[in-house]
Amino acid sequence: MNILVVNCGSSSLKYQLINMLTEKPLAVGLVERIGIQGSILTQKVEGRDKYIIETPMKDHNDAIKLVLDALVDNVHGVIKSMDEINAVGHRVVHGGEKYSSSVVVDDEVMKYLDECIKLAPLHNPPNIIGIEACKKMMKDTPMVAVFDTAFHQTMPEEAYLYGLPYELYEKHHIRRYGFHGTSHKYVSQIAAECMHKDIKDLNIITCHLGNGGSVTAIKNGKSIDTSMGFTPLQGIVMGTRSGDIDPAIVTYLVDELGYSTKEVNDLLNKKSGILGLSGTSSDFRDVRAAASEGDHRAQLALNVYYYSIRKYIGAYFVAMGGADCLVFTAGIGENAYETREGICEGLECLGIEIDLEKDKVRGELAEVSKDSSKVKIFAIPTNEELMIAKETMEIINNK
Amino acid sequence: MNILVVNCGSSSLKYQLINMLTEKPLAVGLVERIGIQGSILTQKVEGRDKYIIETPMKDHNDAIKLVLDALVDNVHGVIKSMDEINAVGHRVVHGGEKYSSSVVVDDEVMKYLDECIKLAPLHNPPNIIGIEACKKMMKDTPMVAVFDTAFHQTMPEEAYLYGLPYELYEKHHIRRYGFHGTSHKYVSQIAAECMHKDIKDLNIITCHLGNGGSVTAIKNGKSIDTSMGFTPLQGIVMGTRSGDIDPAIVTYLVDELGYSTKEVNDLLNKKSGILGLSGTSSDFRDVRAAASEGDHRAQLALNVYYYSIRKYIGAYFVAMGGADCLVFTAGIGENAYETREGICEGLECLGIEIDLEKDKVRGELAEVSKDSSKVKIFAIPTNEELMIAKETMEIINNK
Repeated sequence: MNILVVNCGSSSLKYQLINMLTEKPLAVGLVERIGIQGSILTQKVEGRDKYIIETPMKDHNDAIKLVLDALVDNVHGVIKSMDEINAVGHRVVHGGEKYSSSVVVDDEVMKYLDECIKLAPLHNPPNIIGIEACKKMMKDTPMVAVFDTAFHQTMPEEAYLYGLPYELYEKHHIRRYGFHGTSHKYVSQIAAECMHKDIKDLNIITCHLGNGGSVTAIKNGKSIDTSMGFTPLQGIVMGTRSGDIDPAIVTYLVDELGYSTKEVNDLLNKKSGILGLSGTSSDFRDVRAAASEGDHRAQLALNVYYYSIRKYIGAYFVAMGGADCLVFTAGIGENAYETREGICEGLECLGIEIDLEKDKVRGELAEVSKDSSKVKIFAIPTNEELMIAKETMEIINNK
Repeated sequence: MNILVVNCGSSSLKYQLINMLTEKPLAVGLVERIGIQGSILTQKVEGRDKYIIETPMKDHNDAIKLVLDALVDNVHGVIKSMDEINAVGHRVVHGGEKYSSSVVVDDEVMKYLDECIKLAPLHNPPNIIGIEACKKMMKDTPMVAVFDTAFHQTMPEEAYLYGLPYELYEKHHIRRYGFHGTSHKYVSQIAAECMHKDIKDLNIITCHLGNGGSVTAIKNGKSIDTSMGFTPLQGIVMGTRSGDIDPAIVTYLVDELGYSTKEVNDLLNKKSGILGLSGTSSDFRDVRAAASEGDHRAQLALNVYYYSIRKYIGAYFVAMGGADCLVFTAGIGENAYETREGICEGLECLGIEIDLEKDKVRGELAEVSKDSSKVKIFAIPTNEELMIAKETMEIINNK
């Protein structure tokens, strides 16, 4: 069985065709600049040269058509016909409160996704366009929506409700949703395997640390709290996002410093975080390099980042009544041992002890805690595409 | 030595004249409705009937004059002349970044307090008016300003900086300040005394829980982090304040739901928290009563409240590398054992074990942890007035 995994952005489309027997991708591709001059598709197949097509693509329909052509291409393709694609799994950012798991896409689902646009105005529209484009080209192939928010729908009320008038939740759906669910779920499952335990018997704290980032408390296999909130702005300090701030700062920026709400959103989402604090870059490698050359603000940015994550680890340790393991994943979490070490400094009081020797790994699955550490620490490469493919397979098999 | 402690609100003035030998108040008073029809002064002296004066007071000058008259009154007073007031300690909410301890008020201090108005537009103006009124009436008596923010000025950069562009801190002083400092400092000192240890050898978590509330991490006698931020809106859920929310909710309320920034401030400060969640009241007694009668939203409000505090306790445990004791104080913290117990549920993983028998006390100093608890738990009545008086005495003695 082969599953095509599709992740659409406003002008981009990432895809993988995954063979579910081997759980390996047959092809991995990226379409960029959709609807913009210079549209380009790049497809990688193991053991072969990159396949690059530069041709105008006016929309996601053009892009999907080109992707399918590339997959079945006589020379560069990996399958003979589209019949070898058994299902398509779509990453969808926001599933609102309705979807606590993946679903086969039908008209009702599409209608609800439309309703969720106001909760995720930047992300859901391209996700929807991607699904529609695929449906057009692959009329008889089942489409499955896999939501970033779904895994967190198990949070209890006290974790997902804010201290706001209840009516804002009832009428306007303002609550904590959480994101990166597919990744948190995937790495927690791998961690349970590594510990040779049933995930139902474990308390796991997962740190998904990329340019965006979130920390999740996973008790007995279920998300019970997560640092991102109503939107992906809340939580830990991120590459360009502020994370938690005093909400009164927002009105202060508007009323006292003359910002428009659009400018505030821009500031908090794109100019804050590591970039804003360091003044150097949102790329952690640049900031670490600057810090190691004695740049105070770069070091400061890292310290604020580590500290913000450390506090969440403490909070979620308490939320679960203790933890069995701590997982680092995503671009920074799985690659930057400097970051793992910076975060773990001071966590000994929770029985979390990192082994500086074992920890010197980048991008590979490794247990990095000391033997004496009560809480195991893992670096685990995430694989959201595989997780989407697995969920898609499961759901069409059970249908 | 007698110290007059003054705490001015926009239309109110609380005062105590404290005998520093006994550390007990000679008189405790409250002036209400200053500048409004129905101005009234109420003064209590132990063992006597209340002394009540109803007379028009057009401003704080009138109020202070009346307070001094009441203190030296032949029948109802407690001192013979104003010469028996050795100094006046003024509670001032915001001391900005300049004052990390109390100061004798001079022209330079007054100028800086004016500058701080934009950081505390509701609180600093009446504080300033109160100081000025006292200076007029007591020309030769030293005035000391004791700041709510001062105790927290020891926070390290990674605790007081947000993940915002550094320029917002440099140019506009946007950072975490923290409040309730006088109370956190006072109860941490009492806790150290109770433990027969030097505060410099202790890690203490203090929970000041009143209608407003904050949690502070006090390491070696110094505040290293606190839950309130740039303003008193951030942090735990409070009586009518939201505490932490996704900052994107603020712009969502404005852009999508049509709120003005003033309405947002009003919503988050006055209609949220326990009041907003429960729909019943901001008074915890009402909400607990409703919850015990099966009102789901009332119970929910309490659960969200407990959980928000519990997470801070976990975060600050980590921030200090462990804790020696946990202190509850202020209206709810020192009186409501139900609240202490609700918060402590689940903290056993940190070695924090509350003793349900010992805990059944209201408004008195008590150790309420089990003998087996690694972290001692105390209920400690706060006394901000005495702390202000002590600071005032210390500073004029050292001058």
